[in-house]
Amino acid sequence: MQQLIDFRTDPGQYRHWQIEYDGRVAWLSMNVAEDGGLFEGYELKLNTYDLGVDIELADIVQRMRFEHPQIAAVVMRSGKDNVFCAGANIKMLAGASHAHKVNFCKFTNETRNTFEAAGDESGQPYIAAVRGACAGGGYELALACEYIYMTDDGSTTIALPEVPLLAVLPGTGGLTRVTDKRKVRRDLADVFCSLEEGVKGKRAKQWKLVDEVVSNSKFNDTVAARAVELAGQRGGDTLTGIELTPLERRIDADGSIYYTYISVTVDRAARSATIVLSGPDQLPPESLEALHAEGASSWILKLARELDDALLHLRFNELEAGVLLFKSQGQAELVAAHEALVFENTENHWLAREIKLYWKRVLKRLDLTSRSLVALIENGSCFSGFLADILFAVDRSYMMDGEFEDDDRPPAAIRLSESSFGALPMSNGISRLQTRFYGEPGAVEALKSAIGKPLTADEAMELGLITYAYDDIDWQDEIRVFLEERASFSPDAMIGMEANLRFAGPETMETRIFGRLTAWQNWIFQRPNAVGESGALRRYGTGLRSEYDMRRV
Amino acid sequence: MQQLIDFRTDPGQYRHWQIEYDGRVAWLSMNVAEDGGLFEGYELKLNTYDLGVDIELADIVQRMRFEHPQIAAVVMRSGKDNVFCAGANIKMLAGASHAHKVNFCKFTNETRNTFEAAGDESGQPYIAAVRGACAGGGYELALACEYIYMTDDGSTTIALPEVPLLAVLPGTGGLTRVTDKRKVRRDLADVFCSLEEGVKGKRAKQWKLVDEVVSNSKFNDTVAARAVELAGQRGGDTLTGIELTPLERRIDADGSIYYTYISVTVDRAARSATIVLSGPDQLPPESLEALHAEGASSWILKLARELDDALLHLRFNELEAGVLLFKSQGQAELVAAHEALVFENTENHWLAREIKLYWKRVLKRLDLTSRSLVALIENGSCFSGFLADILFAVDRSYMMDGEFEDDDRPPAAIRLSESSFGALPMSNGISRLQTRFYGEPGAVEALKSAIGKPLTADEAMELGLITYAYDDIDWQDEIRVFLEERASFSPDAMIGMEANLRFAGPETMETRIFGRLTAWQNWIFQRPNAVGESGALRRYGTGLRSEYDMRRV
Repeated sequence: MQQLIDFRTDPGQYRHWQIEYDGRVAWLSMNVAEDGGLFEGYELKLNTYDLGVDIELADIVQRMRFEHPQIAAVVMRSGKDNVFCAGANIKMLAGASHAHKVNFCKFTNETRNTFEAAGDESGQPYIAAVRGACAGGGYELALACEYIYMTDDGSTTIALPEVPLLAVLPGTGGLTRVTDKRKVRRDLADVFCSLEEGVKGKRAKQWKLVDEVVSNSKFNDTVAARAVELAGQRGGDTLTGIELTPLERRIDADGSIYYTYISVTVDRAARSATIVLSGPDQLPPESLEALHAEGASSWILKLARELDDALLHLRFNELEAGVLLFKSQGQAELVAAHEALVFENTENHWLAREIKLYWKRVLKRLDLTSRSLVALIENGSCFSGFLADILFAVDRSYMMDGEFEDDDRPPAAIRLSESSFGALPMSNGISRLQTRFYGEPGAVEALKSAIGKPLTADEAMELGLITYAYDDIDWQDEIRVFLEERASFSPDAMIGMEANLRFAGPETMETRIFGRLTAWQNWIFQRPNAVGESGALRRYGTGLRSEYDMRRV
Repeated sequence: MQQLIDFRTDPGQYRHWQIEYDGRVAWLSMNVAEDGGLFEGYELKLNTYDLGVDIELADIVQRMRFEHPQIAAVVMRSGKDNVFCAGANIKMLAGASHAHKVNFCKFTNETRNTFEAAGDESGQPYIAAVRGACAGGGYELALACEYIYMTDDGSTTIALPEVPLLAVLPGTGGLTRVTDKRKVRRDLADVFCSLEEGVKGKRAKQWKLVDEVVSNSKFNDTVAARAVELAGQRGGDTLTGIELTPLERRIDADGSIYYTYISVTVDRAARSATIVLSGPDQLPPESLEALHAEGASSWILKLARELDDALLHLRFNELEAGVLLFKSQGQAELVAAHEALVFENTENHWLAREIKLYWKRVLKRLDLTSRSLVALIENGSCFSGFLADILFAVDRSYMMDGEFEDDDRPPAAIRLSESSFGALPMSNGISRLQTRFYGEPGAVEALKSAIGKPLTADEAMELGLITYAYDDIDWQDEIRVFLEERASFSPDAMIGMEANLRFAGPETMETRIFGRLTAWQNWIFQRPNAVGESGALRRYGTGLRSEYDMRRV
């Protein structure tokens, strides 16, 4: 049986990273345990990483925001001599399935985006302090930081050697960040990405690949001074974090998984999973102080953490669940009350802001989940406000219309809120409603008058908020037929189609990384020149030269 | 030996399309000859197309602009009953190599873009008149038109059945044009792209998939009236075209190819081809009338046609020529004089405008050529103005610096002109210089003061216009080492890297189609679910069901 990958971790379990908190500055050191690989068959030498290393990093970034809100600058450095980070572990990649490689790249990209955004969003900018070899995914870690310092100690280099050495592309946004974030001239980028050995400080600075080169003797002091200076520019030094207590969940033999507010029922025969979100069972805390006191046990935060975990679990552990069905049950009024406390106070309280930002990230994770996403809006559901964004994230939606026999739940209704109109942007930088009505900006404006109103199936259909409304006679049959059909389509074609249809409108660095770079990488990950018997990934480290089919495509 | 694909054709050779010219309106009828396939092994039933059909279409669009400038509206319709066009021929695709499939899609996409742009650029809008089944690539032909009419005759449908039927994506921009051009709501797009049988008129109009649905009895009259109306909105009814006379070329046994102004020397051992462009040998015609009289024999138009043909030839017939080296020889002053006549008169004379637009297309074709592109700026070269854009299209450039032994040609120099600053935009909508200096718009402004000046290697290096300058001592060795190294890299990784580095900055529908959609399609074209023994492309038409690996990636 396939090994279950668990994304839950905490500082007590870390094996690859150390953190020191020094006033407003956090010092994050990468010190990968060679024998700490998530799977058998490879050693994590030279600070190379696998998914396990990245799960810890994602956890650190998340806890930095919730548990250490007073931190106002994070320095990312190496805990090893002579090497900053040598990128993703090649032996791990060579041995991994295509699906794992692709999922691994996506998760690491999401983590890079998360700490890249932490500066602007949460006042926690990341600074890379590069000493020692910094190659491939190592340099991509630095690229996602706000500022890159590099020593000129003669042995420190930065490189993206994937193309010449491994016949694949840098997998975590390297090419995109080189051209679009750092705006390196394209011919210099071409030279840089073709150089196995990389470049040293002077040239790195000249080509805009790093921000500053500092002599070795002054390196630590310069970085520390800069971190302290950055941190001093922001208030909030008296903030107290909340603890992200362990997520509880139970997995059944059939793969179904139960959290406090979310259940995931897996139907392997039908190749689908049903995710039911439960609304809160009581009113929200009476104040922001009370919300802070509730901390990780508050409904709105706990639901986000559970959904995040469920999506990652499904992505990595349930590869055949091609369709994800989203349902909700609960009282929309309570959802709206909880939302109001958080979303209306993001300017007033750091925790409210962080919870909102977390929902933004979780919903982006949903957008980027390469499964067919479907919402079933049933009687008794509570798709209100931020939860209604799930309806605009999915590929299509079905809503109950009218009376259903033996169903005494309140009639299905959708409620929009202020947060439907920009609080939770997608990777393309605009709201899900703007993306949905890309051709009709007027339609989005018109929807504002519906804020707060319970919209019936008829009304939702009229407003273009749902795909289908069915009554009791048709509901089950229509959904059954659709699910059977969807489950019969080629997963590859569905992935490509959904990835293209979901992101209309503007492009951003994020949509480029996920839409363009990822697609090229997926292609290359399939090609014999990379993964074949004599391909570069397989031959790496064997002493044998790779052999390529030299035809251009 | 592989069959040589020839892109040269003319109306006397067409087998698949008929054209009638009626005043200002051209009626273009697709009537594919079933036995007219470019290769053996398939029949082009139901107006399905292969590369040969598309070569004719590209020729028609090109000649429409040069030979028939008085035309001010083009109606695209079917010459067959009951079918508009059933898309690319599936048996052809199933039997084609991966490289051919990818190259085929790229060429057809370029052709779609060309007639899509003809309305705005040349006042020749295309109108699709859809009667009969219009599926896959057939609907994509219509999507690239400016306006889509559809009959409601009960059997006429539009569809993108690729995903459900063939387990691949629509290959000529269908998904992108549905979401980004026609701005169809994404869940409706999802439904539409999952429907094998497609949709009829009423729903097609409701979902914005077509512009107008007209009853069968009024269809021809309505379309004709609209075409005449559109055509009447533009002047120019007295324009006289020029004839695009046959391109002469000679191919040697070693694959080298000689045109009038271009030679392409193929070095198969080194996996490279050297393209030498020759400047004009005399002053340009004295007036626009004289340019018109010269027609296709004018240097500036002939060079464009030869370069276009050479690029297509190399793409399809020389798959192992992974590096294309661009050189020029000639007098920069003469190049500048020819350029001035054309580029400074695009507002005054249709032919000047069309020649400039053609250069825009040819240079885009160069940008999109998935080979490593390198410029060698030697003594005696004439990279001036629009020809200097080649230097900014390539991945890197090398320039001769100082005296070279036994070389009495004029020292290498680059000349910018007004046209370097926006006359020839890339697919991303900005100039190659803007893309090159994406991070430093000031640098582009500063370059304007260099317009017309011969820039030496030193100056070009200082201004960031070239990658390397080498003197006589290093020149040969540096280039040899680079070429050997480049030729040893995996072609797949190079393709992915170059595709990502070339297009910094804004995204457009074109960059999406080529960057994102194409990459996904390439991936899917490799997957067993599409092309394996029991994949959908192979099983299509056999009566056997496809079998899929159901794991999501």
